[in-house]
Amino acid sequence: MDVVEVVPTFEQYAFTFGGVAPLGRVRPGTALRVWSDDAFCGALQKTTDLSSEKVDLRFVNPQTGPFYVEGAEPGDTLALHFVAMTPARDWGASAAIPFFGGLTGTDRVATLQDPLPDTTWIYELDRARNTVTFVAQHTDLQIDLPVSPMLGTVGVAPPGGEVRSSLVPERFGGNMDTPQMRPGATCFLGVNVEGALFSVGDGHYRQGEGEACGTAVEGAMTTTLIVELIKGGAPLWPRIEDDTHWMTVGSSRPLEDAWRIGQVELVRWFGELYGLHPMDAYQLLSQITEVPIANVVDANYSAVVKARKSLLPPATAFGGLHDDLRRRAATLL
Amino acid sequence: MDVVEVVPTFEQYAFTFGGVAPLGRVRPGTALRVWSDDAFCGALQKTTDLSSEKVDLRFVNPQTGPFYVEGAEPGDTLALHFVAMTPARDWGASAAIPFFGGLTGTDRVATLQDPLPDTTWIYELDRARNTVTFVAQHTDLQIDLPVSPMLGTVGVAPPGGEVRSSLVPERFGGNMDTPQMRPGATCFLGVNVEGALFSVGDGHYRQGEGEACGTAVEGAMTTTLIVELIKGGAPLWPRIEDDTHWMTVGSSRPLEDAWRIGQVELVRWFGELYGLHPMDAYQLLSQITEVPIANVVDANYSAVVKARKSLLPPATAFGGLHDDLRRRAATLL
Amino acid sequence: MDVVEVVPTFEQYAFTFGGVAPLGRVRPGTALRVWSDDAFCGALQKTTDLSSEKVDLRFVNPQTGPFYVEGAEPGDTLALHFVAMTPARDWGASAAIPFFGGLTGTDRVATLQDPLPDTTWIYELDRARNTVTFVAQHTDLQIDLPVSPMLGTVGVAPPGGEVRSSLVPERFGGNMDTPQMRPGATCFLGVNVEGALFSVGDGHYRQGEGEACGTAVEGAMTTTLIVELIKGGAPLWPRIEDDTHWMTVGSSRPLEDAWRIGQVELVRWFGELYGLHPMDAYQLLSQITEVPIANVVDANYSAVVKARKSLLPPATAFGGLHDDLRRRAATLL
Amino acid sequence: MDVVEVVPTFEQYAFTFGGVAPLGRVRPGTALRVWSDDAFCGALQKTTDLSSEKVDLRFVNPQTGPFYVEGAEPGDTLALHFVAMTPARDWGASAAIPFFGGLTGTDRVATLQDPLPDTTWIYELDRARNTVTFVAQHTDLQIDLPVSPMLGTVGVAPPGGEVRSSLVPERFGGNMDTPQMRPGATCFLGVNVEGALFSVGDGHYRQGEGEACGTAVEGAMTTTLIVELIKGGAPLWPRIEDDTHWMTVGSSRPLEDAWRIGQVELVRWFGELYGLHPMDAYQLLSQITEVPIANVVDANYSAVVKARKSLLPPATAFGGLHDDLRRRAATLL
Repeated sequence: MDVVEVVPTFEQYAFTFGGVAPLGRVRPGTALRVWSDDAFCGALQKTTDLSSEKVDLRFVNPQTGPFYVEGAEPGDTLALHFVAMTPARDWGASAAIPFFGGLTGTDRVATLQDPLPDTTWIYELDRARNTVTFVAQHTDLQIDLPVSPMLGTVGVAPPGGEVRSSLVPERFGGNMDTPQMRPGATCFLGVNVEGALFSVGDGHYRQGEGEACGTAVEGAMTTTLIVELIKGGAPLWPRIEDDTHWMTVGSSRPLEDAWRIGQVELVRWFGELYGLHPMDAYQLLSQITEVPIANVVDANYSAVVKARKSLLPPATAFGGLHDDLRRRAATLL
Repeated sequence: MDVVEVVPTFEQYAFTFGGVAPLGRVRPGTALRVWSDDAFCGALQKTTDLSSEKVDLRFVNPQTGPFYVEGAEPGDTLALHFVAMTPARDWGASAAIPFFGGLTGTDRVATLQDPLPDTTWIYELDRARNTVTFVAQHTDLQIDLPVSPMLGTVGVAPPGGEVRSSLVPERFGGNMDTPQMRPGATCFLGVNVEGALFSVGDGHYRQGEGEACGTAVEGAMTTTLIVELIKGGAPLWPRIEDDTHWMTVGSSRPLEDAWRIGQVELVRWFGELYGLHPMDAYQLLSQITEVPIANVVDANYSAVVKARKSLLPPATAFGGLHDDLRRRAATLL
Repeated sequence: MDVVEVVPTFEQYAFTFGGVAPLGRVRPGTALRVWSDDAFCGALQKTTDLSSEKVDLRFVNPQTGPFYVEGAEPGDTLALHFVAMTPARDWGASAAIPFFGGLTGTDRVATLQDPLPDTTWIYELDRARNTVTFVAQHTDLQIDLPVSPMLGTVGVAPPGGEVRSSLVPERFGGNMDTPQMRPGATCFLGVNVEGALFSVGDGHYRQGEGEACGTAVEGAMTTTLIVELIKGGAPLWPRIEDDTHWMTVGSSRPLEDAWRIGQVELVRWFGELYGLHPMDAYQLLSQITEVPIANVVDANYSAVVKARKSLLPPATAFGGLHDDLRRRAATLL
Repeated sequence: MDVVEVVPTFEQYAFTFGGVAPLGRVRPGTALRVWSDDAFCGALQKTTDLSSEKVDLRFVNPQTGPFYVEGAEPGDTLALHFVAMTPARDWGASAAIPFFGGLTGTDRVATLQDPLPDTTWIYELDRARNTVTFVAQHTDLQIDLPVSPMLGTVGVAPPGGEVRSSLVPERFGGNMDTPQMRPGATCFLGVNVEGALFSVGDGHYRQGEGEACGTAVEGAMTTTLIVELIKGGAPLWPRIEDDTHWMTVGSSRPLEDAWRIGQVELVRWFGELYGLHPMDAYQLLSQITEVPIANVVDANYSAVVKARKSLLPPATAFGGLHDDLRRRAATLL
């Protein structure tokens, strides 16, 4: 199986979902190896690089893409299987950007208080040990943390001619910022426009659930993925399948609305997977779901609703595509 | 180590935190084995028992307690270590109560739609296999699920002379409905009144995160716990420690406010545990927290914020009390 | 018509709804003239009196009451008609209390930012001109504003044995902080306990909608009111009638839930007033309601939903009690 | 003063802000008389026309525009003064669209309940009496209501290359659905792209605050407006001035965040108008603002924060443009 390499120039970065000409065309079944810059476009390289001075907020969260998927039409389902994610630099960066993040007033949670101090943390990567190192700024504590790569942003062009900032998580995917978007996972997205026009970006060397300060260990990433297309069957909201879980992602505000969306989407999926009546799916899921918050910092908040496969009878989604993709992925590693 | 057995009569059930005379007095260090009825006071025993007919909503979520802890004064910290939780009946019950739950309009999320159908599910317990069985009502699917006992409700009397329904999760604990409140966990609560006046109840044989339909596999429970008291040090919001995690629980509406509370409380705790400046704690926790939603159905919503100990340098809270309680608990099993 | 004068001592102040012995008993039909202290118990008298130094937050929002209404039983409707409200001091006070208010992080909207500067404003009252004077602290601007007296807090004892802080607005009324609670208005509250046990307090010489900074022009108040009782007919949420509007008050978080509650309660009331089907009431009210926010700062947020009588066919509520009370009130002035 | 007439064909309707070629170019100072279709594109003409059958939800809320304003650059301020709004048809329509509106579950407030019944109401216009007539569907009540024309949607192209549905209220204006957008008002919007690219639409013959059911008395409208441009001075969020009030409009979710945005924007404006320190503006506005909810049904909720000019010392905004526009408007009537 061949792998197509894609490394965009800065001029090719996309900062929106929709509204951008395709970076390339792919046939379903294609494997891609795409390089994506970090959310700051690489502007934060040392702790004295402050976001207020170095980061142009009009150009953050650059996407690699969009890719036009041949044959994809509205109502179809795009499947992106993540084979591998490899840090593409030897450091990651995180920042407390003034008036951005979960534990500060923001442009949306508008208060009159002063901002938190603009602060940058740099995490050195140790490839041998597969760790990044947190270094406290105010004391001498230093902690090695396992690298756990993921993509903050995976999405397609929105419907209705909308064009949305790459900072937004929505029905079309986007900046969901969930650690579940990691190697081994297959993400299913409803196609809204011809060619689907998907893109990926916002690599995180690791991230806590909630992404409390608004930024993860942001890092350039090399992602290997396989693109597949299912005719029809478009889910209303993003679904993720991995070897252990059925998952959905809801994004909205307030956070309970994000959760409701995800929970209802999983009720809907369980209707398809097990023929369950909505009331029975509601009941069953009430007793088994795991619900890790994804982000409480983006333009919409995101919650993931998960059901563990090992608790459930065997079932397959989208014709068993995930298992098939796992097999294909094994040939690439 | 002796264990004091407590089995209340129906007349002794408490339905509030505060406002109730103590059921008993305990000295710090005491081990209790308390029986608690299920959230429905046992009224739902078969699927034809509908909540609208059988459950008196003025008498739900009965608590066993309150217990007066000798020497406890406002500003102190009550520690409750859960040694064991054993289902006290051979079945649990769950229900879609009309206008109650997360995926329906409620008295708070007021809409004009008809209620969902009043439905009861009964879960038979298999003690040998340690499972409860979900039985679909509309198809013939049946699924055995592991028993995973927890207490929905653990709390003390609130401050300021308030008396709160046992359905409410708040700063004083209460109906947090988190699966983290399970055997092996130590819950730390700030004491607001002399004697602390804690109570426990709302046993769940298992529960999904979010408790989507509003009720878990509700069941009478026998809980063994050890009561301890730390002079001073009262946390602002409930904290939980177990062998693997430092945890806090925030409860409010909307759900992002519950999360903010929990996240800030854990920032505060990390200041105590590691001497971290709040900005450093904010950053570190942004990269490591796990944030399972607890409930999105109660009078306040609850979110748990967790930090995995294995990622962190060794530290002890409250003088290492949790480890000590684990040792003492081992002598009881 | 006689008027019973009530001036409590500090020891008689109530700081909760429920949980307090009656200050007095009244027969339906009684007129009361009650003095209430300001929300700070008079502690802020000059701009150098800072809330963090002078105000004991355990003793704020003192209520005058509760009053036991003879014959009142659960399910009945208490009517309080406000005849007159007169400032009882020559100054009012307002403050930006640290971590309290709408445009700052709070204990509920938990952030890590520094508080806004603790600041007190004193408003001198000019009885002849009926104004209070805003005096800027940072420039020399000074503005006379009309006195527009209202009560922030009107409520009864809650159901279920609960006792709630006088800072809380809820189904039982309480700290709704709406400028609609002014002379000429009749407030209808469902009775939850024998005797209703209502109290009033939190006089404002004026207040903007939203009460943005968390405190109005707080002032001691002398309020003349008539107490009436309707057997049965308890509304689920507070209703207010004046000469121009039918009104309901919803209180919850997030603010849209407060609004939903108020809007649904007015749909319900319009069913009673005009025999309208809920869908027709929903439609009609969609085209005519006025919805002034009451507060976005208290333990629950409050929204008022109003329908202007002059747009509507004549109708009477509770047997035309409001008009009758207006006539009786005229004899008192 | 000349008036340019604009009546678009259906093919010229715009359904987004941004992403559409200009319908025309205007010089600052130009007066326009624009026709706009109703939110349903005229599809609901009788009560048996149900939204689920007749309305294509991809084509709702058509805008007339966008107009390219000569000389407008990012950072400038667009002023639109509304001279007159005249119903362009003899009837208006309103509907309870399934899963849309404030008192029902929606795609965002996701529940499992059945939808409310799809229902259409037609309001006949009586031009002589200037009324529209509500006709109940389930009883024989019929009520004439004053016509009070307004535009639900006024906005410019968003920044950052975004394209947003005309259903969205945001920083760029859009579907704010406030009754304050009526003849006599001047709306100030920050310019994000060259030419500003503003459009208007969504005429309402009248609307209650909150727009509870999701639709007003929707009607085709002929709007006369004057377009002006101020170099620089772009407000962060929409501002409205009329003869009696200074106003701001915040739009977000949850509703308290929309309010916070509006309240902070008015604090900012009062800094410009009166040289007030933010703490003094916060205090003063806390005592005088009127806060009518605009909508609780759109993609973002909107709240209006108003300060009455008659309470305040004289001040002028944007060089006294509103008064000047009022004078110019008088020559058009």
